[in-house]
Amino acid sequence: MTFNLSEAFGRLERTPRTLDALVRDTPLAWHTRNEGPETWSAWDVVGHLIHGEETDWVPRARILLEHGRDQPFEPFDRFAQFERFAGVPLGALLDRFAARRAANLEIVRGWNLSESDLDREGLHPELGTVTLRQLLATWVVHDLGHIAQIARVLAKGYREEVGAWRAYLSILETPRR
Amino acid sequence: MTFNLSEAFGRLERTPRTLDALVRDTPLAWHTRNEGPETWSAWDVVGHLIHGEETDWVPRARILLEHGRDQPFEPFDRFAQFERFAGVPLGALLDRFAARRAANLEIVRGWNLSESDLDREGLHPELGTVTLRQLLATWVVHDLGHIAQIARVLAKGYREEVGAWRAYLSILETPRR
Repeated sequence: MTFNLSEAFGRLERTPRTLDALVRDTPLAWHTRNEGPETWSAWDVVGHLIHGEETDWVPRARILLEHGRDQPFEPFDRFAQFERFAGVPLGALLDRFAARRAANLEIVRGWNLSESDLDREGLHPELGTVTLRQLLATWVVHDLGHIAQIARVLAKGYREEVGAWRAYLSILETPRR
Repeated sequence: MTFNLSEAFGRLERTPRTLDALVRDTPLAWHTRNEGPETWSAWDVVGHLIHGEETDWVPRARILLEHGRDQPFEPFDRFAQFERFAGVPLGALLDRFAARRAANLEIVRGWNLSESDLDREGLHPELGTVTLRQLLATWVVHDLGHIAQIARVLAKGYREEVGAWRAYLSILETPRR
């Protein structure tokens, strides 16, 4: 698929309600269940997504638009959520994520990006040269990866409960990655 | 997690709105995109889920409750959707799935299943003895597997568009299974 800005905005808008449909108002035990040591629960994922809204996607897009390749992006802390949101219930995290996402989309829409803006380049601290188009496409794919992750974590909650059907349910064998 | 009937109903109820949040009213090209030959698109998955509502989960639960291990379940046709729903738009499939799912949950709730009912056994044509609890847990996990699949198929639509970030986006490397 060719990247299309309005389609990408449409996808990014859907993520808060997709997360709501998957986990809001579910039993508490499902919020913290993960796939084993050093894997993430739904709670961990939503905290990580908030931290991304606040420190990653839009701040990086701003650096790219203002400084091009002259200023590398700040490294992103993939583990910040554990301290930042300790003790905050999942419902409050979902609210905060939805608010931050909506605000960020309003900001980016306000930039009225042209196709040539999307080709502008920035410097990722590890990956090197990237474009604004790639950054926005990555934002979309990153959301979808974490949605798939939450579905997988929830599914594995019934890993033993499915009995012999386990042989047909490949989601139960998909490693966390 | 121990299987819990009311939690399982809660999860099964969430699937139609999760699918809506992921794909309803999205651009047509995303409905039919798949992961390559013999893989499924969002459209294929929703058709398959409808066929499951109509011929698999509740019909099998009925056979189990009425005949126990004396009558094996009918084999399930995993490919029926391609002929049955040819030409039906995704929005109409989502409507049909939501209606069938709601009706099925009403039926199963009406059975007022006890813990000992959940232990009752039936005969799967390939897997052998299974319990009603396992059937219901499998219904839940099956939904979640297909939700993760749709998220993955959508993510792969931007596989090339993310540039160097591809190295960090494991969802793009997850094989269809």
